[in-house]
Amino acid sequence: MTQLQGIAASSGIAIAKVYRLEAPDLTYNKTKIDQPAEEISRLHEALEISKIELEKIKDHTKKTLGDEHAEIFSAHLLVLSDPELINPIEDKIKSDDVNAEAALDETANMFIDMFKNMDNEYMKERAADIQDVTKRVMAHLLQVTFPDPALINEEVVIVADDLTPSDTAQLNKQYVKGFTTDIGGRTSHSAIMARSLEIPAVVGTKNVTSQAENDTMIIVDGIDGDIILNPSADEIETYKQKHIDYEQKKQEWAKLKDESTITSEGEHVELAANIGTPEDVDGVLSHGGEGVGLYRTEFLYMGKNQLPTEEEQYDAYSSVLKQMGNKPVVVRTLDIGGDKELDYLELPKEMNPFLGYRAIRLCLERDDIFRVQLRALLRASVHGNLKIMFPMIATLEEFRQAKTILDEERDKLVQEGQDVSGQIEVGMMVEIPATAVIARQFAKEVDFFSIGTNDLIQYTMAADRMNERVSYLYQPYNPAILNLVNNVIESAHAEGKWAGMCGEMAGDEIAIPLLLSLGLDEFSMSATSILPARTQIKSLSKQELASYKDEILSMGTSEEVVAFIKEKAKLV
Amino acid sequence: MTQLQGIAASSGIAIAKVYRLEAPDLTYNKTKIDQPAEEISRLHEALEISKIELEKIKDHTKKTLGDEHAEIFSAHLLVLSDPELINPIEDKIKSDDVNAEAALDETANMFIDMFKNMDNEYMKERAADIQDVTKRVMAHLLQVTFPDPALINEEVVIVADDLTPSDTAQLNKQYVKGFTTDIGGRTSHSAIMARSLEIPAVVGTKNVTSQAENDTMIIVDGIDGDIILNPSADEIETYKQKHIDYEQKKQEWAKLKDESTITSEGEHVELAANIGTPEDVDGVLSHGGEGVGLYRTEFLYMGKNQLPTEEEQYDAYSSVLKQMGNKPVVVRTLDIGGDKELDYLELPKEMNPFLGYRAIRLCLERDDIFRVQLRALLRASVHGNLKIMFPMIATLEEFRQAKTILDEERDKLVQEGQDVSGQIEVGMMVEIPATAVIARQFAKEVDFFSIGTNDLIQYTMAADRMNERVSYLYQPYNPAILNLVNNVIESAHAEGKWAGMCGEMAGDEIAIPLLLSLGLDEFSMSATSILPARTQIKSLSKQELASYKDEILSMGTSEEVVAFIKEKAKLV
Repeated sequence: MTQLQGIAASSGIAIAKVYRLEAPDLTYNKTKIDQPAEEISRLHEALEISKIELEKIKDHTKKTLGDEHAEIFSAHLLVLSDPELINPIEDKIKSDDVNAEAALDETANMFIDMFKNMDNEYMKERAADIQDVTKRVMAHLLQVTFPDPALINEEVVIVADDLTPSDTAQLNKQYVKGFTTDIGGRTSHSAIMARSLEIPAVVGTKNVTSQAENDTMIIVDGIDGDIILNPSADEIETYKQKHIDYEQKKQEWAKLKDESTITSEGEHVELAANIGTPEDVDGVLSHGGEGVGLYRTEFLYMGKNQLPTEEEQYDAYSSVLKQMGNKPVVVRTLDIGGDKELDYLELPKEMNPFLGYRAIRLCLERDDIFRVQLRALLRASVHGNLKIMFPMIATLEEFRQAKTILDEERDKLVQEGQDVSGQIEVGMMVEIPATAVIARQFAKEVDFFSIGTNDLIQYTMAADRMNERVSYLYQPYNPAILNLVNNVIESAHAEGKWAGMCGEMAGDEIAIPLLLSLGLDEFSMSATSILPARTQIKSLSKQELASYKDEILSMGTSEEVVAFIKEKAKLV
Repeated sequence: MTQLQGIAASSGIAIAKVYRLEAPDLTYNKTKIDQPAEEISRLHEALEISKIELEKIKDHTKKTLGDEHAEIFSAHLLVLSDPELINPIEDKIKSDDVNAEAALDETANMFIDMFKNMDNEYMKERAADIQDVTKRVMAHLLQVTFPDPALINEEVVIVADDLTPSDTAQLNKQYVKGFTTDIGGRTSHSAIMARSLEIPAVVGTKNVTSQAENDTMIIVDGIDGDIILNPSADEIETYKQKHIDYEQKKQEWAKLKDESTITSEGEHVELAANIGTPEDVDGVLSHGGEGVGLYRTEFLYMGKNQLPTEEEQYDAYSSVLKQMGNKPVVVRTLDIGGDKELDYLELPKEMNPFLGYRAIRLCLERDDIFRVQLRALLRASVHGNLKIMFPMIATLEEFRQAKTILDEERDKLVQEGQDVSGQIEVGMMVEIPATAVIARQFAKEVDFFSIGTNDLIQYTMAADRMNERVSYLYQPYNPAILNLVNNVIESAHAEGKWAGMCGEMAGDEIAIPLLLSLGLDEFSMSATSILPARTQIKSLSKQELASYKDEILSMGTSEEVVAFIKEKAKLV
């Protein structure tokens, strides 16, 4: 057996066979053929199998992630039935006497080049569709396996260099027991998805792909971040027991589903969830979430060719608000730009996108886009307990401007005779160091703060969290971060406001006692982290932790902080 | 007349004719010729003129910027005399019966492609040399003007989209009275060079190149950031007077050259200069600098094909220390990476270089490079008053590691019998928000802080200062920045250490009263800003300014701060 150490990205134990998800070898020989009819029938066979597969993937995606995510596969299916693509391939087989592989490849490439060179985002996306689909058809012509996570029909653990969001979206929980990757961290997209799907995952192992062979046994320990390759029978037994223990723990957690979150002395803190789509609300409620602390609205804008309409947005926001009843729902306005691009907006390429034109900076300049979202939110507000939050605020002027635009849209709606709730709290993300430093000045004007730790940490430490060379500086427990968080909380309280946190840190078992010590009011995390967090908080005394605050804030290093709190919160 | 507004980058008034510095049109027709001898003689004529020009530029650069900067032109001259390049051009003229332009272009391109494709940084630079030189020769063949700032021999104002460092290096102060550009800001390289050369400059006008025509009159007002195109006789008179007033002011300033810098109540603060090479020390002393607050050592590493040796570095550091006598010299260790690349280190491309692998992060991993620099510094320390400063420190661990490496090298040198000063202070740049936030923890372990505002502002505001779309967020007077600066100063004083500032902010007339109010000990700036700063400080009461501190630190916006301090420091 071989043991590898990675980053525990999603809790639980998986024991199954390795399924390597990797790009297939699609090299082919161009050959002269003398039976064109035979090649054409081979082509159509490959097309048909591809269609059947894509239909399955589409259905699966619709069920797990909703209509919006499934749309891409409808586009792929259209390509496979498009005579403008299929006829030229057949013609080429007949006129050039070449095999189906060569005819497919050359014809597809011609279209791809043509579309790519058009100065039109829509056509460029069509080029990408043709490319994706052609690979699948080619694999069937060559009779090589085209890995399709959605089509897996036996229990496996997926091993990959990295998983794209669409790979992760296709994972079928019934068969995919876990996954592990070479790269990525706790805050990478695939890690967040894994937690939301409740699939055990260990990421950032650096070299699992070079060591794990197809169909050999593998154990993924998403609790401690371990990977065991070719385990012995004893090891399998040990981890089966660990799995049972973990499942029991989960059952214990589940008992707290309908309870309030209280510390050992009975003080309440709010545990809320981060969501991306209305479909996520089910998970929030089934895991006992007391609210939505962060509704990321970007998904409404992504994977399409144009901006979402006011109606589409209204429907999504209303759906979330209605499902959540009178529980609070904090909606973050559009946070696009940086690493999140929208092709149809044609944003300029930037040298440092994380320090660039994004989120509120873009929304204040493109207020045409911003106003549509605000109108949809204001109209939806009558269906529940809405709170609106602006991302990437750096200066008071920006917050004031955003609020003025919101007020203008509210006035317009009221004049139009529309109902708008009179109780909407308006707050901001604290993710730029400047706002954490002078939080006191902001606290006078906002209704609440929500600390976005992913960005706050990377700016405060001046280290891109996606850059492996400096990822050692992504330190959530660094005393500098804790001092900023403390200032935000103290400032909010001094002005009678509340402070929450919606970064990954809020659900972390080391961070939770630290944040209780600093007096955080609301913790927003992956839905699956809520019950373990509630269990942990029940056992902690906020008063006792608060007594360590000054000592913690005057520490010098992350290491010191972790050692101290592990002991005090009995995590050792 | 037309008036444009830009950013005042270097003080003073320039009134002269427009000289547009732009890439010449080098398109040519390939023609069949029947007199090859004539073409060959045209070629040699163009080569000769180019050599004469390059010799002049080389001499000029040597005089103004020193031997190191002039080396590139020696390389260019070698290319022009290289038979391995010239012979094939002649052969092509004879064998293909083509004109000299075509033979030059095609031959040069062949070599450029060949060298570029070699996986060897040295050969890639040769490709760049050939490209540069070929353009000049081509311009002479086509008889189009090849703009050469170094060869200008009448009074002009240069108008350009932007100036490269090598353009700026070539400016001859005798004839170039000022310059103005479409892009750039106060902290861009060309702006810093303009101040060091004392040439009035206005940058970031957005569109001066589209409006200024060659040989028309232009006024550059580097005091207020104004550009006047086609001025009237009256306007020329007005600005001539403004020029005279400014020159008188400079004479007033010059009287303070040998005086100490004291506030109105007689308290001393230190005014030091930022330098890049030993040649800059003359300017520091002639402008009354009390020390070097920042010696950027990057120039030693740039514009070469390999790392500088310990001896080369020892010579440079010793030269600066000796020239400065017992005045303090703060040397910043290598700050490379980010926007400053070294081809021969082959650093990986990063998505967000400003948040990436640079400065101390690189030096701690590549300690082979770091140790050579530290040895050179330690050996040079006996020649003056050396202080060593580490850039881009984010955590206490990094500072401790760097210091350990320094101590190891010191011990080795002592064992080798080398003399090393026992008085070297070891400090750090404060340019990452994390260190400003917990400055108190760092103050226990460092000997001093130097606040690097350019980076500190961009990280604290999460805005790339080179990105025009978010440059409105580069706010030196933002209360968040002032609160961080204050924390650094208070922390230093609480532990009996000193705090300086070496960003562009330190020499700014609005920032100076703010920094006095916060109690900054040392201000390091462009040498030419020292005397105006000393004059301003003489008129300011530190005690009075300090009484406004709490009020300033609790303000909400940059605008409020500026309005307040302008009134209190009588800058309105």
